[in-house]
Amino acid sequence: MSDKPVNRRAFVSTAGLAGAAAVLSACGNESATANCADGVAAEPIEWKMVTAWPRDFPGLGTGAARLADYIGRLSGGQMTVKLFAGNELVPPLEVFDAVSRGTADMGHSASYYWKGKAPAAQFFGSVPFGLTAQEMNAWLYRGGGLELWREVYAPHGLVPFPAGNSGTQMGGWFNREIRSLADIKGLKMRIPGIGGEILRRAGGTPVTLPASEIYTALQTGTIDATEWVGPWNDLALGLFNAARYYYFPGWQEPGSALEAMVNKAAWDALPSHLQAAVEVACQAVTTDMCAEFTWHNAVALKQLREEHDVELRAFPDEVMAHFQQLTREYLDEQSAADPMFARVHASYRDCLDMLRPFSAVSEQYLMNLREPG
Amino acid sequence: MSDKPVNRRAFVSTAGLAGAAAVLSACGNESATANCADGVAAEPIEWKMVTAWPRDFPGLGTGAARLADYIGRLSGGQMTVKLFAGNELVPPLEVFDAVSRGTADMGHSASYYWKGKAPAAQFFGSVPFGLTAQEMNAWLYRGGGLELWREVYAPHGLVPFPAGNSGTQMGGWFNREIRSLADIKGLKMRIPGIGGEILRRAGGTPVTLPASEIYTALQTGTIDATEWVGPWNDLALGLFNAARYYYFPGWQEPGSALEAMVNKAAWDALPSHLQAAVEVACQAVTTDMCAEFTWHNAVALKQLREEHDVELRAFPDEVMAHFQQLTREYLDEQSAADPMFARVHASYRDCLDMLRPFSAVSEQYLMNLREPG
Repeated sequence: MSDKPVNRRAFVSTAGLAGAAAVLSACGNESATANCADGVAAEPIEWKMVTAWPRDFPGLGTGAARLADYIGRLSGGQMTVKLFAGNELVPPLEVFDAVSRGTADMGHSASYYWKGKAPAAQFFGSVPFGLTAQEMNAWLYRGGGLELWREVYAPHGLVPFPAGNSGTQMGGWFNREIRSLADIKGLKMRIPGIGGEILRRAGGTPVTLPASEIYTALQTGTIDATEWVGPWNDLALGLFNAARYYYFPGWQEPGSALEAMVNKAAWDALPSHLQAAVEVACQAVTTDMCAEFTWHNAVALKQLREEHDVELRAFPDEVMAHFQQLTREYLDEQSAADPMFARVHASYRDCLDMLRPFSAVSEQYLMNLREPG
Repeated sequence: MSDKPVNRRAFVSTAGLAGAAAVLSACGNESATANCADGVAAEPIEWKMVTAWPRDFPGLGTGAARLADYIGRLSGGQMTVKLFAGNELVPPLEVFDAVSRGTADMGHSASYYWKGKAPAAQFFGSVPFGLTAQEMNAWLYRGGGLELWREVYAPHGLVPFPAGNSGTQMGGWFNREIRSLADIKGLKMRIPGIGGEILRRAGGTPVTLPASEIYTALQTGTIDATEWVGPWNDLALGLFNAARYYYFPGWQEPGSALEAMVNKAAWDALPSHLQAAVEVACQAVTTDMCAEFTWHNAVALKQLREEHDVELRAFPDEVMAHFQQLTREYLDEQSAADPMFARVHASYRDCLDMLRPFSAVSEQYLMNLREPG
């Protein structure tokens, strides 16, 4: 695996050259317009950003809104990014296509939604038992991950940027106690993505349901269990009223990176300082979103325990070990079927193998020995 | 403890109002200058940034350089930030004073260096057995930490911003094996800050030495042990050639936040979009620096183990438990002596007590059960 940092400056300046022909007057800046009254002041650039989230959805929707806000503020009035929540301009799962064909200039979503377009895209979101948020950034920004992501999205006319991370999610809400692998057999659980496939291989029945139907399905026994996000979002959805046990950890999503994607032609038309605004704002939103999730998840977990008497349960070790084995098998199978999946998988796995031993003697070890203050 | 997010927008816009009178023409933008040839184009703003690091010092020096670069790129030529390494304009430990009196507009350093100016400043860097990088961001951006930090720095005419994190450091290099608390008695170790004070209380002798003298002191037996940073920086200093054991974890610095500080008058004179550039660039550098440290530390640890046959050792549990107890006592004593220290301590401790249980069922739990891929 390459030890070279992603050459970010070279990337931006190459794209910046292409964009130079379309460069704007900077006189779009509000405070400067009066000084540039000779008619050359350009109109502000107006971008549309479509997202996969409901408006103001905690963490993801609020993070996407913050990204749009940062870019606008950085541009000093030269650029605005108008945010469209899921279904306002296009449905949530059409973000990729909408930005690819230029219906929108930019999108905010999660890369594992696009496995039908590019199976390898799943690695840039989250993989069961994989990288944590901090490790994910190390892979993307220094371990070759972002370069691979650009390669995967390039045929679709898209330029991807990491833009946020939810941190480790929770295992989900269960009305059946999981004491051994036998309890997984026949379990009907709402769980999408690779996690759902692993559940299926372990004898369960994964179900896909939109957010609006989860609560009722759980309450009426149509499903036995559901994962959603973490304590903050789960509390908001009221899931503690429909299930008895709250399981950890969120083996299926150990550190889910969110993505901003930009239409390649829109990107190339942007002057270099506004390209920098997009790029730096995305990196800033990663810090902020992870802080927001960490804080609100901790507050919500305390509330679930103390006010709603939620029973927390750890998945048994044998279940976790089996799921981990099934995940390895699944990733190897997919690698055999798709060369790009295999390349990204090799990079991701090598990175995890490199980072895990350091985590084990540093942050992870320290967290294990911390006592109440 | 407040559950309110730091009201970042209100902070910026208040400062922005004060700055509006001094607002610049945006025509400093290179690409636009030609269109604003009527003589009103302002000179680019030139800031001096002093740092506490040697030029290109891995992680810290490179992170500070990246911060200066981001701000310049975001401004589109309206602003440049000229970086001065330690001793180029002022010595490393005069960054605070130099920015406070306006010798420089901005500084990059670590807040625990300024405990002589404001004892409470230590919490915004790192505290033994305290918050990890991710938890630190949660406290600073959502748990009230940044508001307290602004309050602590305000009397000095400084506006602070979190700007980077080193992640969890290592315990250090030892020529004496630590098997129990008895081995701490009489141990001469280079370890600054609260960590040094804890070592002293446990019967050791903390020593302060500049980087240039550490290697020889360790090799000649003048000291028995030293901590430095993490595998990346430790490898560069060649410490594996001067000590037998490499101990973990870095109990003394579980997630050291770095800081940017801005002279208040310089901040107020900045137009709001350049204030946004400074603020967003700092937040972006946190993602990038943590990624850089995580990656290079992992690579260096592998190299130390495989190429230099370094023996890793965990501190015994009884030593860690005792150090943790001594840390609690130290923080309580300082709180009794200084009301601002007490306020920041209470906020920090409450935040740690809130965040620890969530970490324990999410990231920490997941990391503990991950197996080799």
